[in-house]
Amino acid sequence: MKVGKEYYRTIWKDENKPGVINIIDQRWLPHKFIIETLKSVDDVTKAIQEMHVRGAPLIGITAAYGLYISSIEGKKKGFNKKYIFDSAEKIKLTRPTAKNLFWALDEMLSSISGLDNIDEIIHTIRIKAKDMADKDVADCKSIGEHGFKIIEKLVKNKSRGIESYATTMNILTHCNAGWLATVDYGTALAPLYIARERGLKIHVWVDETRPRNQGAKLTAWELTENGIPNTVIVDNAGGHLMQKGMVDLVIVGSDRTTASGDVANKIGTYLKALSAYDNNIPFYAALPSSSIDWEIENGEDIPIEERNPDEVRYVNGLYKNEIVNVLIPPESSPALNYAFDITPARLVTGLITERGICKANKDSIAELFPDKIKK
Amino acid sequence: MKVGKEYYRTIWKDENKPGVINIIDQRWLPHKFIIETLKSVDDVTKAIQEMHVRGAPLIGITAAYGLYISSIEGKKKGFNKKYIFDSAEKIKLTRPTAKNLFWALDEMLSSISGLDNIDEIIHTIRIKAKDMADKDVADCKSIGEHGFKIIEKLVKNKSRGIESYATTMNILTHCNAGWLATVDYGTALAPLYIARERGLKIHVWVDETRPRNQGAKLTAWELTENGIPNTVIVDNAGGHLMQKGMVDLVIVGSDRTTASGDVANKIGTYLKALSAYDNNIPFYAALPSSSIDWEIENGEDIPIEERNPDEVRYVNGLYKNEIVNVLIPPESSPALNYAFDITPARLVTGLITERGICKANKDSIAELFPDKIKK
Repeated sequence: MKVGKEYYRTIWKDENKPGVINIIDQRWLPHKFIIETLKSVDDVTKAIQEMHVRGAPLIGITAAYGLYISSIEGKKKGFNKKYIFDSAEKIKLTRPTAKNLFWALDEMLSSISGLDNIDEIIHTIRIKAKDMADKDVADCKSIGEHGFKIIEKLVKNKSRGIESYATTMNILTHCNAGWLATVDYGTALAPLYIARERGLKIHVWVDETRPRNQGAKLTAWELTENGIPNTVIVDNAGGHLMQKGMVDLVIVGSDRTTASGDVANKIGTYLKALSAYDNNIPFYAALPSSSIDWEIENGEDIPIEERNPDEVRYVNGLYKNEIVNVLIPPESSPALNYAFDITPARLVTGLITERGICKANKDSIAELFPDKIKK
Repeated sequence: MKVGKEYYRTIWKDENKPGVINIIDQRWLPHKFIIETLKSVDDVTKAIQEMHVRGAPLIGITAAYGLYISSIEGKKKGFNKKYIFDSAEKIKLTRPTAKNLFWALDEMLSSISGLDNIDEIIHTIRIKAKDMADKDVADCKSIGEHGFKIIEKLVKNKSRGIESYATTMNILTHCNAGWLATVDYGTALAPLYIARERGLKIHVWVDETRPRNQGAKLTAWELTENGIPNTVIVDNAGGHLMQKGMVDLVIVGSDRTTASGDVANKIGTYLKALSAYDNNIPFYAALPSSSIDWEIENGEDIPIEERNPDEVRYVNGLYKNEIVNVLIPPESSPALNYAFDITPARLVTGLITERGICKANKDSIAELFPDKIKK
């Protein structure tokens, strides 16, 4: 998507330097736009763990490119294929919740399972990582197309069929499930970009999304850079806006979705789902099927990451043109920092996937993905 | 309550200087403890509007003392009684939601309705303001006693009657409805202080309460100063903790309660009420009856204050021993800042008032306050 007048992906291989991957270091957005170069598996684990990159799909693709870096490193260090498998284990430890991380690494490893020559492995792994990145872009586009139909239908209802292109749709989103959370286009925001492209009037309520404020920092920034009007609100505000009829639709992403439609997503998603349900507002999760965990039926079985309490105690922002951390509670106060919560399927109107839209229940998901279901 | 080893109220008359009122300037807590002197009606309106003092009961008492200041000012300026009535009108414009502001000013004005001599007026108004402050303290103590019974009963259930004094009760609260929101003791936190005094084990989940972080800043501070263990969480986290069985009880304050039990309180309260309801966790609002609006039955009719969007865009905290504001979203991003929301009575387990506990419905409230009901 656009940054100023230029188009970017969030991650790309340096075409001139083998084993080098570029990312947008998202910790500095929106105040600074910094491109970081990843050259080692340590760079990759650090980038994922410390959230230079984040968002379930992008974590997956970064991990995939991480194995490409690992293959080059492995060759340099004179190691064999085992080095790549060890790197995968290391990368898997970075973040426990997003399914895509494990999926992407397993896909990568299985692509080289029959190979023994290191150059052949490097070649295969490079192609495979690029293919997965391109597939992520294509999936996000498809999610956008399917999600667009929901918006189009809702705007027709809202405008009672007349002048639907003059009626503004107010869409609330939590955290960042935009192009910055994927390779391009995004999941939850992809339908919005398409709607905008096709002339529908969209306005987005952006949950700031404490503790790390990915909404206020990333979603507000990417929407603005791509011409979609948006307003930042605190995470506390969405319920009130829904009560007042100021929200037409909620779309969020998903870090892991169970085979029966429970959605693990950024902490606070559950509260917005409850409120959407209480006010009869459609609530959709948009996700590539790579984030579906076919092994888990009950959302409570999804491991929830607990992060450093200082992410709660300190807030990061711009002060005198510098990015600094300010302390909020008393110095001695402890904090607790779960990164995700589970929205039960009963509160989810539907799932928007690359194959189409389904209800958040076992049968409907299985109908869309018969090939993924264990017989 | 205690600050370090000393006891304070949040507001008190300077005994040596007529027309001078002291307050704790709460904007600097928890990082700095600053006492401010209010000497004019302008000081008072500014202190309320810019939230040097906040919390419905304390806003009411500050307004009452404001009329005392006004009476002294009025005499100095050679004005008559009209000056005091004009001051009341001015103070009423500071904040629209908290009922106590209007209630306190009307009580004050009616106390001098039959008087014409300015010295008699000053005397009456001074006594009345002090009486109202003392009444607030007494009411909060009563709220504490009634609320304590709820905690005691719940802890007995939780511990199945055995060793209830060894079982920790996890109580979640939103914003600050502690002693800092009142003259002393608090509303939502008063039962906790009593529980602590009587040896029950209490642990509090403190919602940070964006945008102004009164939870992280004020609630965490006052609980810690008074020996109650507490943990700061982001506003997004409460739902997840409830799903995991980590919350036994929710108690919040109220800025205005309708005669049928709808509760206007800090924005985000509604989301916690939804989540408590969804997880079968008791949800109480604690309030002096001065915050009940006997004229309004439907919560939607309560005026909701909209504050400066910069309270959302900037976060205030400690950096290098200085209190500074950091910008979170892009410089150009708009924000919207409603200060309160309405929790419908159907989600409220009960109201804890100075007269006892009632259900959040018209009949139950009327039964407790038959004298307030219009025939």
